[in-house]
Amino acid sequence: MSKKSSHKPSALSEQDGVSQPEIISTNSAASIKQKRSKQPSAKDLIEQIIDGDVTALSRAITLVESTNPKHTEKANTIIKGCLPYANKSVRIGITGVPGVGKSTFIEAFGMYLTDQQKKVAVLAVDPSSTLSKGSILGDKTRMEDLVKNPNAFIRPSASGESLGGVARKTRETIILCEAAGYDTIVIETVGVGQSETAVHSMVDFFLLLKLAGAGDELQGIKRGIIEMADAIVINKADGDNMARARDAKVEFNRALHLYPEKASGWKPKVKLCSALKQDGIDAVWNMIEDYLELVKNNDYFESHRLEQQKFWLLQTIEDRLKSNFYNRKDIKSALTKQITLLESGETTPFAAAEFLLSL
Amino acid sequence: MSKKSSHKPSALSEQDGVSQPEIISTNSAASIKQKRSKQPSAKDLIEQIIDGDVTALSRAITLVESTNPKHTEKANTIIKGCLPYANKSVRIGITGVPGVGKSTFIEAFGMYLTDQQKKVAVLAVDPSSTLSKGSILGDKTRMEDLVKNPNAFIRPSASGESLGGVARKTRETIILCEAAGYDTIVIETVGVGQSETAVHSMVDFFLLLKLAGAGDELQGIKRGIIEMADAIVINKADGDNMARARDAKVEFNRALHLYPEKASGWKPKVKLCSALKQDGIDAVWNMIEDYLELVKNNDYFESHRLEQQKFWLLQTIEDRLKSNFYNRKDIKSALTKQITLLESGETTPFAAAEFLLSL
Repeated sequence: MSKKSSHKPSALSEQDGVSQPEIISTNSAASIKQKRSKQPSAKDLIEQIIDGDVTALSRAITLVESTNPKHTEKANTIIKGCLPYANKSVRIGITGVPGVGKSTFIEAFGMYLTDQQKKVAVLAVDPSSTLSKGSILGDKTRMEDLVKNPNAFIRPSASGESLGGVARKTRETIILCEAAGYDTIVIETVGVGQSETAVHSMVDFFLLLKLAGAGDELQGIKRGIIEMADAIVINKADGDNMARARDAKVEFNRALHLYPEKASGWKPKVKLCSALKQDGIDAVWNMIEDYLELVKNNDYFESHRLEQQKFWLLQTIEDRLKSNFYNRKDIKSALTKQITLLESGETTPFAAAEFLLSL
Repeated sequence: MSKKSSHKPSALSEQDGVSQPEIISTNSAASIKQKRSKQPSAKDLIEQIIDGDVTALSRAITLVESTNPKHTEKANTIIKGCLPYANKSVRIGITGVPGVGKSTFIEAFGMYLTDQQKKVAVLAVDPSSTLSKGSILGDKTRMEDLVKNPNAFIRPSASGESLGGVARKTRETIILCEAAGYDTIVIETVGVGQSETAVHSMVDFFLLLKLAGAGDELQGIKRGIIEMADAIVINKADGDNMARARDAKVEFNRALHLYPEKASGWKPKVKLCSALKQDGIDAVWNMIEDYLELVKNNDYFESHRLEQQKFWLLQTIEDRLKSNFYNRKDIKSALTKQITLLESGETTPFAAAEFLLSL
């Protein structure tokens, strides 16, 4: 980090693709400082990422997250270079309300996976996060073992106003992590707004983490979320909670049964676990392996990933078309006026739309 | 209909706003023919519609459904003139798979309502329909009493390729029907694609018609549809079906209980009926009256209608932005090429989107 502080961010990409000539100086300290502050080129970063260099990976993600157009350009070059090495992983989405124990679960799950010789990257999608407010995963102390684990890479959510922006950055970060050799990508979301849908559309397997509660388990679950889930994992199934957890499992199983069959051919499962006691974590992973076997054999895995790519292509285009239109100054004021006319019954939605589109 | 056949459709609006001079002729037959073929002005049509003239209403709807820009312009004038007289109705959406008895139900429901001194308009949203294939409601013989009823107006679905287009035409037709004095608007859909969502966003009350089946009632119900329903009405609850219908009612009640509370404050109900025997139709209407009392008292009725208007405004804009973009010839071929690159892993969704947007 101190390496960067001597440079203005806008200078970051000025040396792209050209190796900076070594400055000859009798002052060796100055020479070292000069070397340190030198920003690696896109080409260097690509090579280092493919080599599994975590510092290079972090730097590239910072470029992806930057709003500086020069950084974006450099990031795009890096992503393009990493693409042939990406795509070879399993991507797992994890959601659940605050308090359900997501960090504890991911810590236990991540440690279990690294014990199985996996390399695990943990990312997050949380459009509400800012550095000051503290995003999910921002407080790495909640994953104290995993954060020290050399086979795990943890990155808090990109900050940003729009879900579209945060989702794009996470999608690109997945590519970088995969190129760096991480074979299991875990993406956490707290489910603000539509963020679960966004995460669902970038993962292979979607896991809903739940607590055994006061009987009426399904009441209040956000619309559509059970339909998206490939598994519901009931956490904190230990001690006095055990009976309630089992009841919850019965109720969730009944609820899952009500939904139409999934295109993957997979029947969603309900599992109990205690992340704190590291109980049932292996069963969760075995279930995911069963899922992968199924969808790799029936070709859903590949076709689904391709569908997701197309979805993101169209989504990005449509988000931009909308923001380009609604951010126009003349449209902003005219839209307010048309809504007033709608409210007083002096126009129809269609006439108002025609008018706005004619501006 | 024969009046129109002597005119080319494109001439329909040429006399808008000007009353055509009477042609003096010794040939009285020719004179009569001339009178018949005279197209009423927008102003005339507005007055006649407000007067409850069904012929004028039908003509105006034909203008709404036309793809001729001149007709659209005339239709817009008529809608604008009708707007102050619209909005005073209850709009009820009815969906259900083919075979569930929608036509029989609407016939019985419509006859019941006209007996209660209501004026009922029955419309349909069916983007898959074409005149040749026979749209829902197209076969009016399935509603033989209602079609002869002077207090009922039945209009088949507008034909058209896109749901957006059909939905717009139906929304505008609602305004015309309301101005013509119809106080109960029933909108039928078979639920092709997203058409249920479209109908849901133009009605006050959304009713899902079901059959008592072979036990597993909820399996196979389209995603999200139960969440939209204000009531599930189990049809053909008569004779041997009665026990199964009661079982289905229990299961649906349990399913409804699983969903989050509605913004309207209304708790969705399950009712049994036999449209064929005209059994339970009154209970369905009483339920809708209970709903209306609730939502008119808690102001949801008005605020919800306004939200729907805004939704349609934004929806129309966004549909047009998208179609303007995707219909560009250069975009069409470039998009195909970018998708090929995506498939071979040579680009990312975001880079492809950037490229397309830069064209």
